[in-house]
Amino acid sequence: MSHTDKQLSDIALMAKSARAASRQMLSASGRDKARALRLMAQAIQEQRQALQAENAKDLDAARKNGLEDALVDRLALSDKALDTMAAGLLQIADMPDPIGSTTASAIRPNGMRVAQMRVPIGVIGIIYESRPNVTIDAAALCLKTSNAAILRGGSEAFHSNRALGAIIQQCLAQAGLPVDAIQVVGTTDRAAVGELITLSDDVDVIIPRGGKSLISRIAADAKVPVIKHLDGNCHLFIDADADLDKAHDITLNAKTYRYGICGALETLLVHQDIADRALPRIAQSLTEKGVELRGCERTRAIVPHAAPATEADWETEYLGPILAIRVVDDLDQAMEHIARYSSQHTESIVTENLAAANRFQREVDSSSVYVNLPTCFADGFEYGLGAEIGISTNRLHARGPVGLEGLTTMKWVLSGDGQLRGQN
Amino acid sequence: MSHTDKQLSDIALMAKSARAASRQMLSASGRDKARALRLMAQAIQEQRQALQAENAKDLDAARKNGLEDALVDRLALSDKALDTMAAGLLQIADMPDPIGSTTASAIRPNGMRVAQMRVPIGVIGIIYESRPNVTIDAAALCLKTSNAAILRGGSEAFHSNRALGAIIQQCLAQAGLPVDAIQVVGTTDRAAVGELITLSDDVDVIIPRGGKSLISRIAADAKVPVIKHLDGNCHLFIDADADLDKAHDITLNAKTYRYGICGALETLLVHQDIADRALPRIAQSLTEKGVELRGCERTRAIVPHAAPATEADWETEYLGPILAIRVVDDLDQAMEHIARYSSQHTESIVTENLAAANRFQREVDSSSVYVNLPTCFADGFEYGLGAEIGISTNRLHARGPVGLEGLTTMKWVLSGDGQLRGQN
Repeated sequence: MSHTDKQLSDIALMAKSARAASRQMLSASGRDKARALRLMAQAIQEQRQALQAENAKDLDAARKNGLEDALVDRLALSDKALDTMAAGLLQIADMPDPIGSTTASAIRPNGMRVAQMRVPIGVIGIIYESRPNVTIDAAALCLKTSNAAILRGGSEAFHSNRALGAIIQQCLAQAGLPVDAIQVVGTTDRAAVGELITLSDDVDVIIPRGGKSLISRIAADAKVPVIKHLDGNCHLFIDADADLDKAHDITLNAKTYRYGICGALETLLVHQDIADRALPRIAQSLTEKGVELRGCERTRAIVPHAAPATEADWETEYLGPILAIRVVDDLDQAMEHIARYSSQHTESIVTENLAAANRFQREVDSSSVYVNLPTCFADGFEYGLGAEIGISTNRLHARGPVGLEGLTTMKWVLSGDGQLRGQN
Repeated sequence: MSHTDKQLSDIALMAKSARAASRQMLSASGRDKARALRLMAQAIQEQRQALQAENAKDLDAARKNGLEDALVDRLALSDKALDTMAAGLLQIADMPDPIGSTTASAIRPNGMRVAQMRVPIGVIGIIYESRPNVTIDAAALCLKTSNAAILRGGSEAFHSNRALGAIIQQCLAQAGLPVDAIQVVGTTDRAAVGELITLSDDVDVIIPRGGKSLISRIAADAKVPVIKHLDGNCHLFIDADADLDKAHDITLNAKTYRYGICGALETLLVHQDIADRALPRIAQSLTEKGVELRGCERTRAIVPHAAPATEADWETEYLGPILAIRVVDDLDQAMEHIARYSSQHTESIVTENLAAANRFQREVDSSSVYVNLPTCFADGFEYGLGAEIGISTNRLHARGPVGLEGLTTMKWVLSGDGQLRGQN
């Protein structure tokens, strides 16, 4: 350690070690990465008792601090939770290595070959709340993509995360990979997060996973690019040419599959020509499921038990058993409503009309735009990504569900035989 | 205009108009966009005299203010400059429309189709220095990609840019496109730039074109993502297995094609096993061309007229007729030097050894990595992009030369027939 280094904080030193490890990872083979992931799965099974003993310390503290039961549940490293972690590691180990593949290869008129090669981003900082399974998930995805990662979990999971971090580093070493490629922040000091997001020399991207207020705060203060996941105020539009059975089933599924997910339906828009026929049955089924309805005037003329909707209802991501409903004049008014109120996450149209489907899919400016599907499909596994680090509401780099590719970038690789530009 | 709008500054109002125009552009056809570009080419030819009269005001002011001759030249809308602008517009008009194409299309086990569609970013702010041709280039590239653009040129080109902006908007209107899709900032107030880069609701990305200090300042203060172009401290490594003729010609081309471009060679690394044979001829040719040489001790033992290189030489992007030279032990030491000093722009290896070429191209972490080519090829036209808005030194979204694709993003489009997630 040089004299300069001695002045640095712990988190800045971790970032420097991560940068060094990320350089070594550039030559890591897919085989060694898969081996490290399999060793981790094995170690989690073999060290089950020790992990659960560390986890018990976190659980005791959580109960003592009066944490809600639901949060304590998410903190627990039960046998089932550990089995799921190990299975996830094996699944990622078996996926093809995304690094080093080339695309867009072409030969230029002068004979040189131009291509783009998929490469790691570099150093990724992941900031998350109390679930210790994120430690393993995030480590696996970053390792698979040859990135170095700095993982900062919630303080409630301190002992669990430390124990998991030790297993991860032991397996990296066994596989001949740099141990600093995955580092778990060993402090509950909140200032560490504030510093991590400003270390633009040694951290290439920050991925916060957690509540909207945490993510907004990080995005506001970061000096490093942030892949953020903010609101999911999702819309479904039932077009005049919708199939009534599909409209019913899709609406019900979109709203009630799970209330708390970002792809849950929040506002239903219905074409005026079909509202009479579509709404009564949809309203009845939703009400039977315990969903509160809030409608515009035209909606309430058809569904009298709906409460009046206000401006705030169009703007709100309920994440609960409430649905706003508006009857609109036509496709254009539906798209105007979406352009005005949507958080540009996921929107869907129900229609049998090809022109309406094409216009909706082309002109609605959201990260996912569906035809005849419920918005609750917004999920990397459903899209076939095989893994998901989150859902991005950014417009650039990664948009929508983020799988392994979102943790990579491209570089240009050109090969020639002495071609020159102009004449020497 | 509402009461709220009245409180907004001119630049904030422009950004709101740009956002509205960007929504209208989502339904713009490729044909209308091409028509607008052709109309602009025609208008530039037809309104040549009026444009040159406005340009004369800028040129007079520039001479009065004692602007350097080179800068005055770049400001001038000569007949040749106008012809080049018009030709560029026609070339972009003829390129295929990048918007709306889909990729990665796959059918999931449940029968729904998942694909990604190329879409505009939205609103792009471009901040540049005095060259008025950038106004037309940037407008054409943003229009072709269905983005709305806010263009803020240097104050020296105020009258020229205003006249070009009027032509652009007149042609947009003629083609039936929203006139606010391309807006030229009509003020030389510097505060406008400071505000533009913070309008994260209405501006999606900022592209600064100009000197490093301008770009650094913008990147530091922006609340909007910035596609930035910083240093190009480029390296060439002559491997032990290099062809001596290629090594000579490539080095000369990389350094002397043009000193001022970001792909110009700044440090030459030479394998110790070949330095005796390679360096004397290279040094002689460079010296004949007027390039000053600064070398490490081992270099100076072979090239006595080279000045001693210091640490600062390895770190410097000269952008001039100076070259730093270091003899290294092997490929690993060359790559260590690059990892430490490079700005990760463009690096190249000269070698006939396949394993060395592959390792270099895989492990060197720069946006462009070449084999047997001079670094001065770093240019979007040379890569076959057909157009270039700049060269990005970011790691995310756009890396290296940025063509039309860099001004677009992707959205997910899913199509089904009533598939549900789980069971209702």
